[in-house]
Amino acid sequence: MSKIKELGEFELIHRLSSRLKFRAPNTVLGIGDDCAVYPVKSGTNEVISTDALVEDIHFKLSTTTPEALGRKALSASLSDIAAMGGVPKRVLVTLGIPKKISVSFLDRLYAGFNTICNRYKVELAGGDTVSSPKCFFINVSIIGEAKRVFTRQGARPGDLIFVTGTLGDSSLGLKLLSKKKREAKDHKFLIGRHLDPTPRVLEAGILARSRINITSMIDISDGLVQDLYHICKASKVGARIHEDRLPRSRELSRICDRDQIDPFPFLLNGGEDYELLFTLPPDGVKNLKRQFLKAKALVTQIGEITLKPKKVLLEKSDGRDKVLPQLEGFNHF
Amino acid sequence: MSKIKELGEFELIHRLSSRLKFRAPNTVLGIGDDCAVYPVKSGTNEVISTDALVEDIHFKLSTTTPEALGRKALSASLSDIAAMGGVPKRVLVTLGIPKKISVSFLDRLYAGFNTICNRYKVELAGGDTVSSPKCFFINVSIIGEAKRVFTRQGARPGDLIFVTGTLGDSSLGLKLLSKKKREAKDHKFLIGRHLDPTPRVLEAGILARSRINITSMIDISDGLVQDLYHICKASKVGARIHEDRLPRSRELSRICDRDQIDPFPFLLNGGEDYELLFTLPPDGVKNLKRQFLKAKALVTQIGEITLKPKKVLLEKSDGRDKVLPQLEGFNHF
Repeated sequence: MSKIKELGEFELIHRLSSRLKFRAPNTVLGIGDDCAVYPVKSGTNEVISTDALVEDIHFKLSTTTPEALGRKALSASLSDIAAMGGVPKRVLVTLGIPKKISVSFLDRLYAGFNTICNRYKVELAGGDTVSSPKCFFINVSIIGEAKRVFTRQGARPGDLIFVTGTLGDSSLGLKLLSKKKREAKDHKFLIGRHLDPTPRVLEAGILARSRINITSMIDISDGLVQDLYHICKASKVGARIHEDRLPRSRELSRICDRDQIDPFPFLLNGGEDYELLFTLPPDGVKNLKRQFLKAKALVTQIGEITLKPKKVLLEKSDGRDKVLPQLEGFNHF
Repeated sequence: MSKIKELGEFELIHRLSSRLKFRAPNTVLGIGDDCAVYPVKSGTNEVISTDALVEDIHFKLSTTTPEALGRKALSASLSDIAAMGGVPKRVLVTLGIPKKISVSFLDRLYAGFNTICNRYKVELAGGDTVSSPKCFFINVSIIGEAKRVFTRQGARPGDLIFVTGTLGDSSLGLKLLSKKKREAKDHKFLIGRHLDPTPRVLEAGILARSRINITSMIDISDGLVQDLYHICKASKVGARIHEDRLPRSRELSRICDRDQIDPFPFLLNGGEDYELLFTLPPDGVKNLKRQFLKAKALVTQIGEITLKPKKVLLEKSDGRDKVLPQLEGFNHF
């Protein structure tokens, strides 16, 4: 076995991390969740994560602006902190800069960083700028704080599955990006959801401050089904979701209707939604709905956790069940 | 102004970071030192930093092994923590992986990470592996803890300047790497100092636990003179160093003698020494020497801090002073 492609990204990470023997004595959660977790003082944990964006893999300079790219680079990392129920505090940003990148491009990229830092009260506390002649890349490491920590482990049969916001907008937006005609308002909305996603920091805060017994949580970056599989694997359970409950934006519905596009590949497998996917026992639903209503934030029950280990079923609108396959999400290798 | 090269790396960082408005209320030190610093509980600070290595800029796959590359990538980051007087705790590692990199290469790279993690009790707590078709890069973010924090600011006229270990080995080793003949033991030592540097975590620990009044500290990554300029700029002082006091290894001396190489460019401006450069008032010297002797660690007084702001002088062996220019260190742009 010598090709990374044959292993896949998740297998590779598992293989490499299993080689690492040293674990700090106070580690709550090491490699394998959205963030690593460890206490810094009584009642407070730090949650940390790192993420890279590489030109032509994660973004194209021809289809985004430097400002939006800066906002998205940080938002993706903020979403990892939100996935743990944390509050983002500090980021470290590395830029690998080829010659074609100008100072004014970097000024605008930093304007994007600045927008997110101000909006979410996150400090850009350090970084590294290196020459990288052959490719432009951005690496963001993030440190947040969490009193209660939500992980992928802990979902139990009978728990209900919820998701914030709407699904599939980002991946449909990505598809529309490659088309020439995109002047319509709906197009702009969907493309905006792809280029300039909103990390669900507010929603994570609602959950963290509530007394709701959130049993597991993840942010959707690889697509609903794949990220639900991550929860099922970590929690050793299965899941059933309902086709007709998957929340979709009016914009997505209209474009799919008009252009005769099947919405389900986008809703189920579209990447980079950056919505929160989480589970809780039925007795917490009333409280959850009240809190989200108060904050004018969208939350939808899309299914329930089942006994069948590591199997994700889709209940179609005709009542029949379909097993959803576990893919590798966005496997770029 | 549109070229990064015209600005230089340090000006660029200054320009970009000045655009960032949000600063966390408890920040002790933000962008601009080896690490950012903030308290996590009474008496304990966290120190954080990030660093990238890009193929053909910071390393060549033809002249190193995956294991040594893994060790060096972490050691360079550990050195940043040591420079603040901190104890390294956790690292996050991002790999940007082109197709030519095999799984067995990554296994060996991680074996290198594992060596350093075990040796210094550092946990590899998370990471990201991304496809990067055009270039191989490694980004390491590191989190350490420090009770006392040593920064670049605080050196005062009359303070004495010390350096750990020996200077110039790494840069002479880099020069030797490009030569074909390198079988001699001295060559191997110097090349090893370049490919596999030792972060001065032990020495930083001695200083941090001592009662010595360390007034400023930095690790030498850009070369002695440039990093001394960083201290002088941050502390608003000048410095005089003495040509005949610069500590050099026997290996460097022998190679320079035999091959008629001028050692001073290596001693003064060679990058990646990863030695600690620090200042203290004269009354701490006795204690310092005793502690380093006990630990069998090398430390050498090389000069003193002067009033003349931001000027670094070299006292030559004939007694004359020479102003040393401030360069950009390793400016890869």
